[in-house]
Amino acid sequence: MLKNIPSIISPELLKVLMEMGHGDELVIGDGNFPAASMNDRVIRLDGHGVPEIFEAILKLFPLDIYSDNAFLMEKVPGDKVETPIWKEYETLGKQGDPNFKGFHFIERYAFYERAKKAYAIVATGETALYANILIKKGVVV
Amino acid sequence: MLKNIPSIISPELLKVLMEMGHGDELVIGDGNFPAASMNDRVIRLDGHGVPEIFEAILKLFPLDIYSDNAFLMEKVPGDKVETPIWKEYETLGKQGDPNFKGFHFIERYAFYERAKKAYAIVATGETALYANILIKKGVVV
Amino acid sequence: MLKNIPSIISPELLKVLMEMGHGDELVIGDGNFPAASMNDRVIRLDGHGVPEIFEAILKLFPLDIYSDNAFLMEKVPGDKVETPIWKEYETLGKQGDPNFKGFHFIERYAFYERAKKAYAIVATGETALYANILIKKGVVV
Amino acid sequence: MLKNIPSIISPELLKVLMEMGHGDELVIGDGNFPAASMNDRVIRLDGHGVPEIFEAILKLFPLDIYSDNAFLMEKVPGDKVETPIWKEYETLGKQGDPNFKGFHFIERYAFYERAKKAYAIVATGETALYANILIKKGVVV
Amino acid sequence: MLKNIPSIISPELLKVLMEMGHGDELVIGDGNFPAASMNDRVIRLDGHGVPEIFEAILKLFPLDIYSDNAFLMEKVPGDKVETPIWKEYETLGKQGDPNFKGFHFIERYAFYERAKKAYAIVATGETALYANILIKKGVVV
Amino acid sequence: MLKNIPSIISPELLKVLMEMGHGDELVIGDGNFPAASMNDRVIRLDGHGVPEIFEAILKLFPLDIYSDNAFLMEKVPGDKVETPIWKEYETLGKQGDPNFKGFHFIERYAFYERAKKAYAIVATGETALYANILIKKGVVV
Amino acid sequence: MLKNIPSIISPELLKVLMEMGHGDELVIGDGNFPAASMNDRVIRLDGHGVPEIFEAILKLFPLDIYSDNAFLMEKVPGDKVETPIWKEYETLGKQGDPNFKGFHFIERYAFYERAKKAYAIVATGETALYANILIKKGVVV
Amino acid sequence: MLKNIPSIISPELLKVLMEMGHGDELVIGDGNFPAASMNDRVIRLDGHGVPEIFEAILKLFPLDIYSDNAFLMEKVPGDKVETPIWKEYETLGKQGDPNFKGFHFIERYAFYERAKKAYAIVATGETALYANILIKKGVVV
Amino acid sequence: MLKNIPSIISPELLKVLMEMGHGDELVIGDGNFPAASMNDRVIRLDGHGVPEIFEAILKLFPLDIYSDNAFLMEKVPGDKVETPIWKEYETLGKQGDPNFKGFHFIERYAFYERAKKAYAIVATGETALYANILIKKGVVV
Amino acid sequence: MLKNIPSIISPELLKVLMEMGHGDELVIGDGNFPAASMNDRVIRLDGHGVPEIFEAILKLFPLDIYSDNAFLMEKVPGDKVETPIWKEYETLGKQGDPNFKGFHFIERYAFYERAKKAYAIVATGETALYANILIKKGVVV
Repeated sequence: MLKNIPSIISPELLKVLMEMGHGDELVIGDGNFPAASMNDRVIRLDGHGVPEIFEAILKLFPLDIYSDNAFLMEKVPGDKVETPIWKEYETLGKQGDPNFKGFHFIERYAFYERAKKAYAIVATGETALYANILIKKGVVV
Repeated sequence: MLKNIPSIISPELLKVLMEMGHGDELVIGDGNFPAASMNDRVIRLDGHGVPEIFEAILKLFPLDIYSDNAFLMEKVPGDKVETPIWKEYETLGKQGDPNFKGFHFIERYAFYERAKKAYAIVATGETALYANILIKKGVVV
Repeated sequence: MLKNIPSIISPELLKVLMEMGHGDELVIGDGNFPAASMNDRVIRLDGHGVPEIFEAILKLFPLDIYSDNAFLMEKVPGDKVETPIWKEYETLGKQGDPNFKGFHFIERYAFYERAKKAYAIVATGETALYANILIKKGVVV
Repeated sequence: MLKNIPSIISPELLKVLMEMGHGDELVIGDGNFPAASMNDRVIRLDGHGVPEIFEAILKLFPLDIYSDNAFLMEKVPGDKVETPIWKEYETLGKQGDPNFKGFHFIERYAFYERAKKAYAIVATGETALYANILIKKGVVV
Repeated sequence: MLKNIPSIISPELLKVLMEMGHGDELVIGDGNFPAASMNDRVIRLDGHGVPEIFEAILKLFPLDIYSDNAFLMEKVPGDKVETPIWKEYETLGKQGDPNFKGFHFIERYAFYERAKKAYAIVATGETALYANILIKKGVVV
Repeated sequence: MLKNIPSIISPELLKVLMEMGHGDELVIGDGNFPAASMNDRVIRLDGHGVPEIFEAILKLFPLDIYSDNAFLMEKVPGDKVETPIWKEYETLGKQGDPNFKGFHFIERYAFYERAKKAYAIVATGETALYANILIKKGVVV
Repeated sequence: MLKNIPSIISPELLKVLMEMGHGDELVIGDGNFPAASMNDRVIRLDGHGVPEIFEAILKLFPLDIYSDNAFLMEKVPGDKVETPIWKEYETLGKQGDPNFKGFHFIERYAFYERAKKAYAIVATGETALYANILIKKGVVV
Repeated sequence: MLKNIPSIISPELLKVLMEMGHGDELVIGDGNFPAASMNDRVIRLDGHGVPEIFEAILKLFPLDIYSDNAFLMEKVPGDKVETPIWKEYETLGKQGDPNFKGFHFIERYAFYERAKKAYAIVATGETALYANILIKKGVVV
Repeated sequence: MLKNIPSIISPELLKVLMEMGHGDELVIGDGNFPAASMNDRVIRLDGHGVPEIFEAILKLFPLDIYSDNAFLMEKVPGDKVETPIWKEYETLGKQGDPNFKGFHFIERYAFYERAKKAYAIVATGETALYANILIKKGVVV
Repeated sequence: MLKNIPSIISPELLKVLMEMGHGDELVIGDGNFPAASMNDRVIRLDGHGVPEIFEAILKLFPLDIYSDNAFLMEKVPGDKVETPIWKEYETLGKQGDPNFKGFHFIERYAFYERAKKAYAIVATGETALYANILIKKGVVV
């Protein structure tokens, strides 16, 4: 633990966030996201929900202003599950970074392809469905 | 995640708990415990308190009946800090395993020596002080 | 060994099952399946048959409801060998997971291609022929 | 799998048995034996009992004639558990190797010290208690 | 060394032969075969000829009955070198495995391509020319 | 780079500072300190002086209140070199952490022994002599 | 540290510069450059600006005379940020190497592609924008 | 050092030369050759010229008689540099191996492509320009 | 394979022999020697006898003239086995190196201790008993 | 290669020299020095004599002024070999570093013990006997 660093952030995640540069992408996957088969750099935060991790990361990590910077996985056509967590993400995004302009949606398999090219994936224990977030790092000035 | 496994247990911790045998010891360290300098096998569960981890582990891990099986770090002489978390541990121990007979106390530096020989250390984000637990694995029948 | 975990599951297999996410696939290969040349992540359970492993895995691992979730390798055209073990698999599938809807068949070389992309392969000592199973992990809720 | 090799022997165990030389020792630990904390070279054969492994190993591995060559862990003083498996081991030893002259007993902690110096430990799922065996390799002529 | 295992087989080769499954291929290369540039899994048996290795391997390793199972490298057009060793291989094949039906020939560069995809290459000290063998593993029943 | 983290701190150093626990020690060595021969965990910050690193670290890292927490290497008897940098360190310590109570001095070879047991050493390009600092981490509350 | 080597050059960077040959390229990235996702060989020099590193490198590293040898990343169309640091780079290039003939510009994503093929990337803490340099090594005579 | 082995050959180079088989290629690069970016297997012989290494290698390494076996890098069109070292190489080739039939020339970038596929590259300190050699190993009889 | 190097010497053994210096010791163990438990550097030459390896090594490796340079393992008191191979070793030693002055004998467990400190152990398939040799490398001039 | 660095210094040696700090020791061993059995950090410069390496190193590496800084291995009592190279070393030492005050002598086995604790050993092809040097690094100012 360190002064001024949210204790939910692990040493390895902190290192990874710092290594990332402008335009690199990070996935925060829910508990069912196939993180280990998508990317070699997986940071596990078992037992935590995505909202508290998203909130903590935005304290350290600026979103990109040169392009869309926050994404959610679209529901599979026909799936009627409710996704109230998206609302919560929206609120956290707005509070956490003035560069946040709302989420864009990516189709399930396209999201997987993008996760494969992301810099890292944070694997959580989030039990809500369709609760994966992908964010793009901006410039630290 | 798996059916019937508490989601706070990470894949690596689950593997470690299963590899342990009769008499092997496990430390659940609080957020200030010097885990990485004590042992090469450290499983990080940042952002979690010790009680929920202790509770989850007892669902899988039997305590030893051949010897004392649960230990706390003694307060440094003169330290007046209150340790209400010990009470909570006592309750969780009793609920979690019929072999639990209460905690024994180990002086700070003796606790460190024992942690060096433990099979593994779980590093948590527990903010309570003197909140480290050492448990000894029993026989699975 | 742990409480409530079938003892046929090794620590490494348990870890692998837990790391897998929604949509990841697992092969349980018979004793002649070329596991090591198909995949870098091979968990060996020598000397065991596939049925007891399949049964144990279904206690922990939910099948996917978004798509077909269980597959067998088709017999090579002209091969007259009997495959009574398929019946046994059918029974175990039904008993083990309400999401199980029966097996689909995949041609031998197509099965190999799919095994190469699976998350892992469990190598067994099953002596029955055409006794390989491929399953797709579902959502843990 | 190979012709003429018992299928319970894994490729890694076969390699280890072959690498061992005259006087090297091997532990076959029961399911509660703390194998991973005793030795860096652990071969897991989860879900199997010790007798079938002991029997298979003796088909390949000669016992030493220059010294005592087979050992069991002594019961802890006061422990009244029955150990019928010892009888079974005795029979297997006699059938498996003409050099077998019966088991010698080693006190629990002395057994651990010896296991630390053994060439390797086979970790099984044997549920019988006090079911660990230590054998010393002889000369192949 | 082990009872009943030909002593020319190294521990590593034994492990590799056992890991191979139905349809996997093995090259036994002569002393001039570019083994190390063809495959990451090379087992060296320097100083031995191919015939004694081929003979020893057939004691453990069944040839495939589902397809052609034994191959030699064709002579480069115009090369007049005699290859009496092929006769010897023919005899050993017939004696060693009832599934052996004679060798098929593969052009030099096609042989190299196949060696790159083989499970492993055994590098020998065989001094005869065109003395490389490729065999395909069958089913162990 | 991250928001609110001094940019002189590298990702690896940040990870190391966070992994450290109560009582772990860190050396900030000057440009002539034999860091690589003293410790396996060396973080290089070539080209920087010790003061700016010391200042940055104190923003994240609390000093221990249970014991002396800051140390300098004593001058070798007879060495007349001036060490004005100690004054600067004193100022930075006071400004950076209320737990700082001044430096204690350790003889050169005793300092080396302590550096060998430290959790990590930061290697700098500081050109001042006798400019090494050793600090002990306190409790984060 | 060594005699006659600028102290801002780390041991690892010095080794990398020396390993490079004629035509190999090196990127000196600013603090926001996504170095870790572009290349496996990253040398971090956190907390330093690009100019002092560029100047130090040119003391050891000759620019190529067989082709263009120095490049900057073009501003994204529409971006109005000023880039006064380019002027400073120009001056340092001229002073540092007679082979320097001025910078050529590469579009942002083309620059990334080239960085992926570079021999190494130096990651700095430079806060100026569009401050990345790519240089090509010449012949040492 | 060993009896009868030229002392300029390092243990690692000797091993590499011996591992190579018929048709494998070796590059001896001059001091400016970009060896490390071309191949993962680089043996450094800093401070030596190419001629003495070429001469030493030919004592151990036969050239191929099935194809062209020795190559030089062509001068870049328009480059007027003299290359007297080629004469010396010609002499050494003739003295060193009866299979040597003179050098063939390869254009610079084609030479690089071939170096990437070579078995290994020897990196020297040769200061002559265009002084790289590529040789193809023949059959040892 | 290489010109002038006995083909029984593997690339790895050749490298090891060359790395050794004055006073370093090498063990050539028989097929029952516990090589893998004695030393981390083991070179396997399965299927070969010790005499042909000893003879080949002496062509490259000078014996030490500063001290005793060749040793055999003494028979265990009471063991009546004949050791005709010692005669053969004597002959090979005399033919192979003018510095050879006959063998000295070392008690079994003292031999093991020395083997643990040797630079490397060659593991053979020699079936003669008491057939281990230890030699000390001399100066190459 | 780099500007202003002697080309006999390899990239790895350069890195090692730079990592060393005040008081660290370096051995330059002759061709018969048992470097690989003395130290894990060995830099090979096969085929070179010690004098040219010693001369090159002194251009970068200051000798220590706080203690004796240069040592030779004493002749074994009774050895009458001449050691003219010591004279040459003396001259190079004086020319290379004003802190050089002549060599001190260390008995053979004491020299070995010191080499084991040195930071690194440079292994050369020097054929002169008793030609090993040990130097202690000083302060770079």
